[in-house]
Amino acid sequence: MSAQAIHGIIGYTITPFDAEGHLDLPALGHSIERLIEGGVHAIAPLGSTGEGAYLTEQEWEAVAKFTLTQVNQRVPTIVSVSDLTTAGTLRRARFAEEHGADAVMVLPISYWKLSEEEIFEHYRAVGDQLGIPIMLYNNPGTSGIDMSVDLIMRIVNSVGNVTMVKESTGDIQRMHQLHLRSQGQLPFYNGCNPLALEAFVAGAKGWCTAAPNLIPELNCQLYMATSEGQLDKAKALFYRQLPLLDFILRGGLPSTIKAGLRLTGIEAGAPRRPLSALNAEGCRQLQGMLNELT
Amino acid sequence: MSAQAIHGIIGYTITPFDAEGHLDLPALGHSIERLIEGGVHAIAPLGSTGEGAYLTEQEWEAVAKFTLTQVNQRVPTIVSVSDLTTAGTLRRARFAEEHGADAVMVLPISYWKLSEEEIFEHYRAVGDQLGIPIMLYNNPGTSGIDMSVDLIMRIVNSVGNVTMVKESTGDIQRMHQLHLRSQGQLPFYNGCNPLALEAFVAGAKGWCTAAPNLIPELNCQLYMATSEGQLDKAKALFYRQLPLLDFILRGGLPSTIKAGLRLTGIEAGAPRRPLSALNAEGCRQLQGMLNELT
Amino acid sequence: MSAQAIHGIIGYTITPFDAEGHLDLPALGHSIERLIEGGVHAIAPLGSTGEGAYLTEQEWEAVAKFTLTQVNQRVPTIVSVSDLTTAGTLRRARFAEEHGADAVMVLPISYWKLSEEEIFEHYRAVGDQLGIPIMLYNNPGTSGIDMSVDLIMRIVNSVGNVTMVKESTGDIQRMHQLHLRSQGQLPFYNGCNPLALEAFVAGAKGWCTAAPNLIPELNCQLYMATSEGQLDKAKALFYRQLPLLDFILRGGLPSTIKAGLRLTGIEAGAPRRPLSALNAEGCRQLQGMLNELT
Amino acid sequence: MSAQAIHGIIGYTITPFDAEGHLDLPALGHSIERLIEGGVHAIAPLGSTGEGAYLTEQEWEAVAKFTLTQVNQRVPTIVSVSDLTTAGTLRRARFAEEHGADAVMVLPISYWKLSEEEIFEHYRAVGDQLGIPIMLYNNPGTSGIDMSVDLIMRIVNSVGNVTMVKESTGDIQRMHQLHLRSQGQLPFYNGCNPLALEAFVAGAKGWCTAAPNLIPELNCQLYMATSEGQLDKAKALFYRQLPLLDFILRGGLPSTIKAGLRLTGIEAGAPRRPLSALNAEGCRQLQGMLNELT
Repeated sequence: MSAQAIHGIIGYTITPFDAEGHLDLPALGHSIERLIEGGVHAIAPLGSTGEGAYLTEQEWEAVAKFTLTQVNQRVPTIVSVSDLTTAGTLRRARFAEEHGADAVMVLPISYWKLSEEEIFEHYRAVGDQLGIPIMLYNNPGTSGIDMSVDLIMRIVNSVGNVTMVKESTGDIQRMHQLHLRSQGQLPFYNGCNPLALEAFVAGAKGWCTAAPNLIPELNCQLYMATSEGQLDKAKALFYRQLPLLDFILRGGLPSTIKAGLRLTGIEAGAPRRPLSALNAEGCRQLQGMLNELT
Repeated sequence: MSAQAIHGIIGYTITPFDAEGHLDLPALGHSIERLIEGGVHAIAPLGSTGEGAYLTEQEWEAVAKFTLTQVNQRVPTIVSVSDLTTAGTLRRARFAEEHGADAVMVLPISYWKLSEEEIFEHYRAVGDQLGIPIMLYNNPGTSGIDMSVDLIMRIVNSVGNVTMVKESTGDIQRMHQLHLRSQGQLPFYNGCNPLALEAFVAGAKGWCTAAPNLIPELNCQLYMATSEGQLDKAKALFYRQLPLLDFILRGGLPSTIKAGLRLTGIEAGAPRRPLSALNAEGCRQLQGMLNELT
Repeated sequence: MSAQAIHGIIGYTITPFDAEGHLDLPALGHSIERLIEGGVHAIAPLGSTGEGAYLTEQEWEAVAKFTLTQVNQRVPTIVSVSDLTTAGTLRRARFAEEHGADAVMVLPISYWKLSEEEIFEHYRAVGDQLGIPIMLYNNPGTSGIDMSVDLIMRIVNSVGNVTMVKESTGDIQRMHQLHLRSQGQLPFYNGCNPLALEAFVAGAKGWCTAAPNLIPELNCQLYMATSEGQLDKAKALFYRQLPLLDFILRGGLPSTIKAGLRLTGIEAGAPRRPLSALNAEGCRQLQGMLNELT
Repeated sequence: MSAQAIHGIIGYTITPFDAEGHLDLPALGHSIERLIEGGVHAIAPLGSTGEGAYLTEQEWEAVAKFTLTQVNQRVPTIVSVSDLTTAGTLRRARFAEEHGADAVMVLPISYWKLSEEEIFEHYRAVGDQLGIPIMLYNNPGTSGIDMSVDLIMRIVNSVGNVTMVKESTGDIQRMHQLHLRSQGQLPFYNGCNPLALEAFVAGAKGWCTAAPNLIPELNCQLYMATSEGQLDKAKALFYRQLPLLDFILRGGLPSTIKAGLRLTGIEAGAPRRPLSALNAEGCRQLQGMLNELT
């Protein structure tokens, strides 16, 4: 399966915990099956939604391995392998590759703000030792680092297997620039839920989202409508799901998606502290939205 | 002509000066004719592009009166009447109304940052004494004030003749919220050139832009394509004109549009100091883009 | 009187209006007398506090002339002459010079954001035609333009009569850099009330403030204590007046200072709309602070 | 040794690595001895300078244990125990307590932005299970979270052993507010090197800094001068060391301090990737400054 095939709705998984806070892999299996049945075009474990940053190394490996086995190449799997150190990122990326990932996603998370040169070398070090494609991920809201379009294009042009870009700044003009600078040749993906419609209109090849854990049909229909150039239909579908997209982003994806899964029959536990579970009022609002949409 | 008819491409005029820095009304007449011949759906004098903030009161009145006479109701005219004081804004708004404007545009420009209550009272004071519609204008980049969607909705719901909103933050999500909060009933207009495609897709009723001074056909075709739901055509038209839209925004609209008018046969002079004319390298780049697009 | 003599507490005047909103010059005279009796080392009319941006040209000239006559060189007078256009700024600067100002203050206010080159040329154009010193003023909070230390030093080194810098960003590190870059030779002044202590400690030659309209003794004592190197005394004086300094800044200087003048016996009217007068709760708080401090 | 005794110059240690990237504890020992000989009043391992965020759990524990043994209560030791999870932070804090730390420092690092409630619960969970004082640390530049003074005061007032606050926003007004809100009773510490002078003047009880790895005498003299109210001497000492303080902050503390240690005879290796070692030009500049200051 070619990484070039990655497109459409890329469903992000949560990482379920049991009452004691341990991994609950069977629940992860249920949630993956729901995503695939819902029609997602790819699966992405261990991202922001998957609390990848809050897991021990052993937990991280267990989730990566379990997910790849469960998906079993029915759709491509893109594993988030971001770690604070270059060595840790590379180790995770190789683990993913060895266990059958189609691609890895790399966000330059940081404690100290990194210079452009440090970011560049980080991608090069990982890229040079990997045999599968890398999706470069820009999300200053979580990483504290905002990669300029100039830097992204430099990395893409210099590191052979950085072949995809996920953009989550919320600024649609970044996608315009990626399109113009690459003469439309660089596949870019949208990671900001409330930009779903505009990103597809601007040429995004896919939408990286946790929403299909709850409303996969609406997400897929929006992709279809824009693919087929049906603007009015796409607009109506977008505004229908937008309140939910706003809600899950504002409330924090691990908290809101886990609450939504519980409301729809999959018990995935609470997010790991300091993240907190969605409160009662939030659950009530979410139930109201789900009632209307599903 | 009803203000509700305001839609499509709203062309912003420059304010031409002669070599001594005095108003050059004949040149303004030429530029208005070009906009109307180019197919714009409305004309907007004395906005940011029109250097309204840099004119004396006498000059401001002369430009307002001349423009309304020249347009002569062939298309609606929306006059920017923003002034630092509430009294000054009201005086300009009444002048525009008395001379036949279809609507006025009000940006809460400031020296001291205004509180939400001060902004609200500013709109109420103007609205209460005016018989024509007001387009509320949000543009923190020039005004230093960013009105929240909450505040905008409060003003729209309380001041009867604030019936339109122009949004220029560059954040498409503001338009989403205006659409959702008003159940699609509040007409909003895009004032950020590089968001032209996405704003129409998100439901903007019009595009407030100085670009039709240079490329009116491309601007109108983009509006038409989105109106007719032709997504692929709209996308191609948008990316074709985007480099020029980026260029005129980055270089400052008075400077770049006046330079472009000169390159295309209308001498409108230089912008008023401290604004500077486009330099030689900028003119060369602009000529290159115009060669390609026209 | 040499401009090099400008130091210490530089008291900013309000511009009083009567009940009909017209200039109230006698009240201005009273407030100037209070400032001088309170011990300020210089007087500065028509600044941010003085609502200079909200006056007509005739009002502006009347206030400038009246103030210079009233002060009558008992202390230096620094007139704020900022205008949106370079021509307007120059005209005001010459008016101030002709009527006996010791120096003028120039803030590069803007509608369109200015480039560094445009700002530089603005100062050069004014400086080249003026015979008195200019205090360059940096205050992004009101002007929308933040001049870098690099740009400020370039202007100071190139325009002969720009001999003083007023810094109001609230970032004490800017003052450090002005000190280091000029080997301690460039006089800089603090325009951010809550930084009064630290700015003097860092070497500021003066404090530009509207606070002496209300608490001139405390302001002057703080200056004295730091001049004499009495750190503990300065710290105690600073923390004593800080709540009031915070209050007048947060509430907007024209509104809070005019309210405070009324509470202490000078009726200066309300600020000009859209600025609003301090509300009843604010007046109550202000009265409480004044009771404690005076 | 009481935590209340923590004051003055709090020296932050680097974490040395050998050529293979493994911990070099003997080098850590040398650097600790130099700090103590230089006169620091406390030692703080595993902070931002100590690359605490980039270590494995085993490495973290080894450094904590080694440092506590080496210092051997000659001065207080404050161990940074921040971890992305609450459980991990608590585990580290207990480890530090068990091995003799006088206090721990907790920065609410995050991947997902935390709500105020989540931050509050994070501190409470750690505080409730710890027998030694906690220094709350606010540094949005590295943590991505900016705790308001309101939130800090709420935590201090509710969690018994949060008894100290380290402020690194670079905004001296935060320290003013901590002082005013606590009637001068809450000990606060400055973590922003270029604010060293002003923070002491505003009442900071200590300066948390990596600078004493290179210039301990100048740091201690500045503290002494402000303690004794010698303003002119303090100012001269501050401006003398400011270029170095600016340099080490701008270049990243792990990189610049390790380079400086090498230049002064302690080989501590390079920082861990993606952080990069100071380049040749940077080393040359640093050498020049050290020549002048030591």
